[in-house]
Amino acid sequence: MNLMKGRNLIIFIGIPGWLFLIWLGGYYYTLFILSVIIIGLHEYYKLAKIKNAEPLKFIGFAIAGFIANYFHVRAETNGLQFMVILILTIIILFIWQLFLIKDNPTKNMAFTIKGIMYIPILLGTAIAIRQFDQEMDTNITFALVTSIWACDSAAFILGSLWGTRKIFPRVSPNKSWLGSISGLFAAVLVFYCFHHFNVLGEIFTIENAITMGLITGIFGQIGDFYESLLKREAGVKDSGTLLRGHGGILDRFDSLIFATPTIFIYIHSLF
Amino acid sequence: MNLMKGRNLIIFIGIPGWLFLIWLGGYYYTLFILSVIIIGLHEYYKLAKIKNAEPLKFIGFAIAGFIANYFHVRAETNGLQFMVILILTIIILFIWQLFLIKDNPTKNMAFTIKGIMYIPILLGTAIAIRQFDQEMDTNITFALVTSIWACDSAAFILGSLWGTRKIFPRVSPNKSWLGSISGLFAAVLVFYCFHHFNVLGEIFTIENAITMGLITGIFGQIGDFYESLLKREAGVKDSGTLLRGHGGILDRFDSLIFATPTIFIYIHSLF
Repeated sequence: MNLMKGRNLIIFIGIPGWLFLIWLGGYYYTLFILSVIIIGLHEYYKLAKIKNAEPLKFIGFAIAGFIANYFHVRAETNGLQFMVILILTIIILFIWQLFLIKDNPTKNMAFTIKGIMYIPILLGTAIAIRQFDQEMDTNITFALVTSIWACDSAAFILGSLWGTRKIFPRVSPNKSWLGSISGLFAAVLVFYCFHHFNVLGEIFTIENAITMGLITGIFGQIGDFYESLLKREAGVKDSGTLLRGHGGILDRFDSLIFATPTIFIYIHSLF
Repeated sequence: MNLMKGRNLIIFIGIPGWLFLIWLGGYYYTLFILSVIIIGLHEYYKLAKIKNAEPLKFIGFAIAGFIANYFHVRAETNGLQFMVILILTIIILFIWQLFLIKDNPTKNMAFTIKGIMYIPILLGTAIAIRQFDQEMDTNITFALVTSIWACDSAAFILGSLWGTRKIFPRVSPNKSWLGSISGLFAAVLVFYCFHHFNVLGEIFTIENAITMGLITGIFGQIGDFYESLLKREAGVKDSGTLLRGHGGILDRFDSLIFATPTIFIYIHSLF
């Protein structure tokens, strides 16, 4: 009952707040996503601690800020400059590791880097997509968030009502094939409606919209499975306790973490 | 005694062979460095196994091949394309991890990524530097290898003769301040001579040459310490047994792994 209360609180305050921030855009949305990234990374590093690693948290946070800024300004760095930044980051991390007196330096460093790959780089693309929306007068961010919400809801409702054949019991024991396929349909339907009512943006064709729906439906669910795998491995049920009953930021954003970068890649293959 | 024999064998066959490959350049040198990277990565992943991780070796090797090719052709990819490639790699790795039935998937993935950062990305720059030599008629690769060899030898000889104050006993119990400083001098001296006898390349001033010597002397020794840290953490003395008495490829190339990318960055800050 208490759990349901927390859940409702989030739905009634959290979701409108989130939509408002998307509508605001600019630095407001960037700072919102950066906060999500930092809290998510913090939760991820807590999971790593259960595996006896001690990631260099604050280095992870600093790099997250750098990546968020990169996606915000969408700087025109060339590949060589990118490589130089990557190399400098690696060398600084390694030298830091050399002087830090802690057990298991390699393991700590490995988890630090893995965390940066998982959350700031993948979820940071949400910032770039919102900036793209601003520039090209599109509404992909709204469509994406609605689509993931519809996908989750359809999968949960239809799956728990009639789902019998399990899709991936090793990782996620409750998810069914029926739920997953319903979720995929719902995700595509949302993008279809956004296009049909001319909200998605004039530059997209109906084929583009349906493809984006498919990407969201498929990769959103993969993101969900992936986060389940991480929790299962660490032997915990929820990734955090910040949003009571909602099992942490990672639990809330797991689908976005995979759906956003794949949409980002798709958009940049088009334009 | 047997150890000394192996050591001599390597010096008499290995070093001229290496110099010959540098002289050949082109694909010969690229394939040589790629082989070093693959064997080094294999050794690194063996060290990871001691820490109970099972890295995805063949994914690491495949990505190493891709990175070596990138440095060979020095492709003019822009930052965005680079980011797309990075994101695709991460997502493919994560999905792979999802379907692989093994214990500790996160740990395995963390070590896989750490290995790619450590060896292919850092040492891969050796390929780019050799290609730069070809194009600009310089001999940085020769100077760099000679400089590291001089640095190691001077540090070893002077350090064992008169070195008393230890420089970094927690990581490397035998290295002394005197040895390190002698090594740094020797590294600078080599670059100075290469410049003085007009071998380094006409585009470099004497200041450039001395800076490169300092970079090599400092980062080469840091690379040495870093590899000691990895071995110390895994509780082994040598990283591999391929070159008997030489303690593995990583032991041989540890200085280059840090000196090459820093020289790469320095050169690209100049031109």
